[in-house]
Parts: sequence; C-alpha cells; structure tokens
Amino acid sequence: MLRAAMGVMFLSFNFDEIASIINARSLAIVGASGVPMKFGSFYTSAQLQMDFDGPLYLVNPHEEEIMGREVYPDLKSLPETPDVVALTIPAHRSIEMLRDCAELGVKGVVMIASGFSEIGEQGRALEEEALELAREGGFRIVGPNCFGIYNPRNRMTVLPGYDFSKSPGRTAFISQSGGYSVHVARQAQSLGLGFSAVVSYGNAADLNETDFLRYFTQDGQTDVIAGYLEGVMDGEGFSNALSEASAVKPVVLWKVGRSESSRRAVASHTGSMAGSSEIWDGLVRQYGVIPASGVDEVVDILLALEHLGVRPGRRLLMASGGGGIGTYAGDIAEAEGLTLPPLEGESLKRMQAILNRAGAVAGNPLDIGAPLIPLQEFEGAIREAAMNPSTDILIFDLAINFGYILAGEPGLDLVGDILIRIHRDIGKPLVVVLYSRSFDPDKLDLEGVLRRMRWKLLKEGIPVYPSVPRALRAIARVNI
Amino acid sequence: MLRAAMGVMFLSFNFDEIASIINARSLAIVGASGVPMKFGSFYTSAQLQMDFDGPLYLVNPHEEEIMGREVYPDLKSLPETPDVVALTIPAHRSIEMLRDCAELGVKGVVMIASGFSEIGEQGRALEEEALELAREGGFRIVGPNCFGIYNPRNRMTVLPGYDFSKSPGRTAFISQSGGYSVHVARQAQSLGLGFSAVVSYGNAADLNETDFLRYFTQDGQTDVIAGYLEGVMDGEGFSNALSEASAVKPVVLWKVGRSESSRRAVASHTGSMAGSSEIWDGLVRQYGVIPASGVDEVVDILLALEHLGVRPGRRLLMASGGGGIGTYAGDIAEAEGLTLPPLEGESLKRMQAILNRAGAVAGNPLDIGAPLIPLQEFEGAIREAAMNPSTDILIFDLAINFGYILAGEPGLDLVGDILIRIHRDIGKPLVVVLYSRSFDPDKLDLEGVLRRMRWKLLKEGIPVYPSVPRALRAIARVNI
Repeated sequence: MLRAAMGVMFLSFNFDEIASIINARSLAIVGASGVPMKFGSFYTSAQLQMDFDGPLYLVNPHEEEIMGREVYPDLKSLPETPDVVALTIPAHRSIEMLRDCAELGVKGVVMIASGFSEIGEQGRALEEEALELAREGGFRIVGPNCFGIYNPRNRMTVLPGYDFSKSPGRTAFISQSGGYSVHVARQAQSLGLGFSAVVSYGNAADLNETDFLRYFTQDGQTDVIAGYLEGVMDGEGFSNALSEASAVKPVVLWKVGRSESSRRAVASHTGSMAGSSEIWDGLVRQYGVIPASGVDEVVDILLALEHLGVRPGRRLLMASGGGGIGTYAGDIAEAEGLTLPPLEGESLKRMQAILNRAGAVAGNPLDIGAPLIPLQEFEGAIREAAMNPSTDILIFDLAINFGYILAGEPGLDLVGDILIRIHRDIGKPLVVVLYSRSFDPDKLDLEGVLRRMRWKLLKEGIPVYPSVPRALRAIARVNI
Repeated sequence: MLRAAMGVMFLSFNFDEIASIINARSLAIVGASGVPMKFGSFYTSAQLQMDFDGPLYLVNPHEEEIMGREVYPDLKSLPETPDVVALTIPAHRSIEMLRDCAELGVKGVVMIASGFSEIGEQGRALEEEALELAREGGFRIVGPNCFGIYNPRNRMTVLPGYDFSKSPGRTAFISQSGGYSVHVARQAQSLGLGFSAVVSYGNAADLNETDFLRYFTQDGQTDVIAGYLEGVMDGEGFSNALSEASAVKPVVLWKVGRSESSRRAVASHTGSMAGSSEIWDGLVRQYGVIPASGVDEVVDILLALEHLGVRPGRRLLMASGGGGIGTYAGDIAEAEGLTLPPLEGESLKRMQAILNRAGAVAGNPLDIGAPLIPLQEFEGAIREAAMNPSTDILIFDLAINFGYILAGEPGLDLVGDILIRIHRDIGKPLVVVLYSRSFDPDKLDLEGVLRRMRWKLLKEGIPVYPSVPRALRAIARVNI
C-alpha cells in the first residue's frame, strides 16, 4: 500500500478539477490520424464516431485532413484552448507537447503512451518531467500508459471504444488496465448495462485510483462504482476514500497482485506496488466492498446490482425443468451463503395440486418436469413459487431447448412471456439462467435465439446468467 | 454411502451383461410415436435420425406407421427377440411390458419413466416388482427415471439426442441426471469432443454407478470416465470400483448433495442418498479422481484431457496483448497451484531483442503490446516463449478483436495460423483463451468468427477456453 518511490507529493483532491476533465467541453487529439495502421487512428475514429458534444480539434503536423475534418499542425494553432488534450503520440515526444499544454493553460491531459515509469529509470525521469510541467501549468494528468476516458454524457471517448454506447448509465468503472477497461465496458454494454464513465488511468502519475474513487463518490450521476486495481498509490488516502464511497453506493473491486508473478507483472505493467493481500482483504470486509475476480464476475455483479440492487435477499426458490439442476443449485447456494428454504403447508399443497404429473416434483428446488408440461400448469407452478412468502428471489433455468424444441423460437417466446408476466404481477426479483447447448459454428441460429430472449428479459429488469453457479455467485455478492 | 433401504441384493458385476445392453445389436422402442407432442416421439425421432446399426422395432398398439416404418402392436409380435427394449411408456404401464420382456428373454430394458422409488412408497413397490421380473427373466434394467443410453458405436440413442454425433470418441459419461447427460454431451460435442457412450441411469434400481464405472474401466474404447453423481448405492463397491478405474484412466466426477437442500432434492429426484461429503472428499483425494462442479467445468476438464492429457505440467507461460491479463493470470495460477516462472538469461534477452517496442513487456507474463505488433515480431516472441525450457504450457489470450479489428476475419486467421505453426513446430501444449466482446443479438457475425477460429484451433489439438480463469482451472485439474 506504499507509494512507489517517486518523490512526488500528492495534491489534495479537487472535484472540480477532475470534473472539468471528465466532462470536458472541448477536446484536442494530438497524434490524430486517418491512416488505419497508426495508433492515433483508433482514438480518432472512435471519437469521431462517438460525436463529441463540443469542439473537437485534431492535431497532427503530418496530415492535412482526416475524414473530411480540418487538422491543426500543433496545439498553439488551435482557435481556442481545449479543456482536455489527449496525447496519442509516443512517450519521447510527449514532453514538448506538455510544454504547450502548460503555456496554453489546458485543464487536463490524457497521456496514452507507455514508456514511462513502468519501464524503469529512464521512463521514470520522463514521467517526473511530465508531472513537473503539469504542476507548473496547473493542469492534471490522466495516465500515462493508459487507455483514457469514456464519458457518454459529453460523448467523449479518449478510449478506443468506437462502438461504445452514446447513452449514459449509472455505473462508473475505473481501471488501471486499459485492456480490461474496454473489455468490461463492451461486455457489459452488450448486456444492456450503461456507464456514467469509464476511466483507464494506467500509471496514475498524477490523478490516481483514490482521486477517481472520490470523484465518483460525489458524482450524482453515478450509482455504482466498479474498479480493476493493480496497486494503490496512497494507502491511507485510498482507505479513507473507500470508506466514504462504500457508505453511499455499492463499490465492486477486482484487485490483482496477490501472487509473486502477479506482483512482478504489476511492476512492469503500471509501475505500481501491489500491496499486502491481508490489508486489502481487511478493507474489503470492513467497508462492505463487493470483491470480484475476472471480467465475467465483474459483469455478473454489475448485472445483479442493476436489476436486483443491493441485498435482494438470500432465500432462493430454484425452479427448472429437471431434477439435476435444483440438486446442484442447492450445493452452490449453501457454499455461497444462500438458502433454498423447503416449501411447506398450503403453498406446497397448492403447487402439488397444479403439478400432479410424473417427472415433476413440487417443492424447492422445483422440478416442473419439462419440457412437456402444458403452459398453464407451468405458469401456475412458477407463480406459486414466486408468491411464496419465503421466496426472496425466484430463479428459473431456461435452457433454450426448453419450449424451443417443441415450437421453435415462438415456443420459447411463450415461456419468456409467462416469466415476464409473473415478474410484473408479483414484483419480486426474478433471475433467469439461459444458455445455448451448442458452440457449433453452424448453429449460430441457436445463439441468435438465446441473445434475443436474453435481451427481451433484460429489458424487463430480469437479469440473465449463462449458468446456475454464475447466477448464484452474483446474487451472493450483492447481498453485502 | 449406504444403500437405500429396498431389501434388494446386489448382483455381482458382469461385464458381458452390460456390454450386451450398451452394444445392443437389436432394439425395440415401446411407446414409439410419430405424434410430435408425445413423450415417445423424442426417443423415436432421435433414434431414427441416429440410424441404429441393427434391427430397430417400433412398438405401439395405437399407431400403425411412424415416419414410413412398420409399427408392432406389442413385443410378442416382433419377428425376433431384441437385445434391448426401451420403455418410453408411463410407470404404471411398465410392469406388463416387463412380463413380456421376461418371457421373451431380452438382455436389457431401459426404463425411462419416472414415478418409481423417487416418489415414495407406491413407486418403490412398483420398482421392486420391476426388479423381481428382471431377476426372473434374467435381464438387467437401466433406470427407471432416466434418459437412457447413447452409444455412437452401434448408433443407439435411447437418449433424446437427435443431433448427437455418429462418430465415437474416447470419453464415457455416466450420469444420474438425464438432463445433465444430454447437456454435457451436447455442449462437449459442439467443442469437438466425442463419447464412447453416455449413460443416464436415474434411480439405478438394478444397474448402478458402480456397475457402469466398472464397465467403462474395462471397456477398451474408453480412455476417460466422467460422471455426474447424486448418491452412491453401494459405498464399498463404489470405492473399490473407483480405485480400480482411477488406476488405469482419468476419472472426472461431479458429485452433488453436499447441502441440506441438495440432499432433499437428491431424495425426490432419484430416490438415492447423497452420503457424507467427508467420505467423498477422502475418496477423491485417495484415488486421484478429478473433482468437477457444474457442466462448464466438466466440459473444460474433458477438453483439457483430450488435448493436454493428464499431468501436462504446472509451469505456464502466459502471453497476451495486454498487461492486465498476465497480471490477473498470475493470481489465478498461484491460487490453483500453477506457476508463471520468471523468464531469465538468454531467453529473456532474445525476447527483449524481438519485442523492443513501447507497450510490450518481455517476460512471463508476456505482454506483446497488441494489437499493433507486426506479425513477424508476434511470431518471434511467441515462439521464444514456447521454446523456453521452463515453459510446460504456453497460454495465449486471443480476444477476437486481436487482429480482427485491423483486418477482419482474415487478420485474425493470420494470428491463428501463427499459433498453429508454433504448436506444430515446437510440440508443446498450447492453450488459447478466446471470446467475443459482445453478446449483442445484432453482432452474431462476431460470434461466428469466434466459433470458426475455435474449431480451427481445436482441430489442431489446441484447447480453447472462454476466459483465463476457466483455462487455468482446467489445467490445474488435469495435473492430478
């Protein structure tokens, strides 16, 4: 948790400074390019497609026009001083640009290039020089060695996210890794999850995880904060920020750097120090942070927070068209601190009366004996299961061959419609497990059926997971 | 681990008896139907599509022709006595059919219907009656309350697996759950994994998990045995069988019934008793069984066994186009008992010389600084990584936007071709992590790209996983 030895003082947190970067009203991309193989072209084309909500200036002394837009040879030629300058040029050429930034009085610089403190002595000197220029010029730095910022509210994407959504959501994702910032954002977006902002801050030479955590704690358009962290620059500051953040909104953190090889990688990746796992685990417990591991789990948890909120309850009713599924679910549930309370009394009797058929087992888990059950019996049994007072969350395992094998996609749709009707009527959380049974390249039609059904359910506030363990683990995590 | 109290003696294991059922040369389906909503129609159409390698007789007193084939009113009207009779009729109508089976002298009966010991006293009496008829008639029973048997070697599928492969593989899967037998088989098949046989045995009234485990231990066409188990009928017998099996081939077992709700479900699902988790864990350790949890993990492990074999080594070289991936992989590896040994000496120097570019980090983990790396540098670095003497297994995280965003599917193919070339040249295990970054129904083209690339790699003996943790956990499990 110690600051990497760079001899730099932390500046005090300033909400407005960060806000003026994240919500920049004018933007310049230095190293902008229209040449496809050039690094800057990723940023340029992504930002042009995102359609920035303000003046966007492309800067490159070697190109005269990019996608029909005017290109400026340098920052000093711009008609105004932009709020934010994104540098997509190599490390060794950054310093002269930062001098211009200091002279012009920009508010923030996003430094994408690697080749700074993460590569050792030489890069560290370069990074210190950059920091000194920032202090002199009164601007703040995001990066270097990062992917930058995506903010749908001002349509800024100094992240290579050409296909990122233009509609804001309520989750902020801060990430030391650029790759994971894009991976999480894109994966989540394709499940209908939106972001208030995504920030990849890399080496965190100036603005770091603590600053962004504080910023999004105060940001009124952010309801959930998620993060991928390798190291923490300022242990005490981060601990305080975490305490404040988790007191007002759910915080999901994926922290790496527990193993020896991971610590080695952290040092060469972003030049930071991974810190002690014990201290970290203590913080997570103390402040009720939701720990996560891996992209899938982060996205699973964000999906649960979006549709179930925090603490949706631990009492599950597990329903499916098969005996094995509920049996397995019981084991996973118990291991995760969830329960499948037995169905009793009148509720059990009513369900038994509805499900009076061979192969079906009324109870919890509930085996409706699919797929040959008549739809009205299916609806009756599932409704009874959802209404039971000991059911906090109803989970239904809807393999796509359920209904589908009888009547194709329209058959599956009928089942989906019943689940949606019950969800609307009863108003309790419903979680669906849905997967295709084939990865065959020649069976993409099944994947299409699955994805359309998933979107249909997601639009109704019903989270969809690809397996029982992933559903149950996400539910367990949001019961903080 | 105790036998459910049914007062039935175990018959001694007899390889030939089971072989005559699994490798049946003639087959009758009682309850065969051409009416789509009828239960028997699933079995009938699946078996007709599988094209049984021998006489197949359809039996139903109420239908005269099914898909152009002759239908017999009862078993006694058949021109010969079939080896195996599959009963797809309800429980209460089974007994009279078993009388015919006993009289005719069939070798085995597969009883699909539920409504036997799993529903309590009344069903238990019916199951005992069935067993008595089997003893009198000298035939064996698979089931009841099961999905039956799939065997591509004689093209039998008394499982509703209409799209199951006609080509045999080397894995036998035995499953108490019918649903999971189909789910595992279909999922695995779509990843190019074949089965010597799949047996869903349900209540295990007669032939049980111990019998099938013994059978596949001796079966020369089975190299790997996998199983989904709820309870074990004969603890001592099973323990002995497990000892014998795991001494000669890898055994992968997914055992449920650890939790209270799961035990409740086991009883109502297949009428068996889940047994003690402690005894179970002891057996798994003692005999070097590979424990698994869930369909995904079973399939992941089977994929690793198919392409890496047992004990492929624990020293990984983790390569990717990003710093975060290797950093995270280090943590997962250590938690799973694997290592990422640091790269040193001449090998490190050679890799540094190849990868002399900002954003790339030579070492282990290896960050090639994708996606803008020239292909010859990519090949050089990956080759050096694979050749390193401390590399047992090379892992490459190949997100489909790697190469693809530059040059579409042909670009990704070039990357795939390099990996395949290195795999062929160096002859060490290579594992690829490959995923699409979108679940959008309108981006199915990306899913197609992913699936084609996955198949291309699988055909070269390169297992492909959808995430780093799933890849590493599978590798850890097969290092028994």
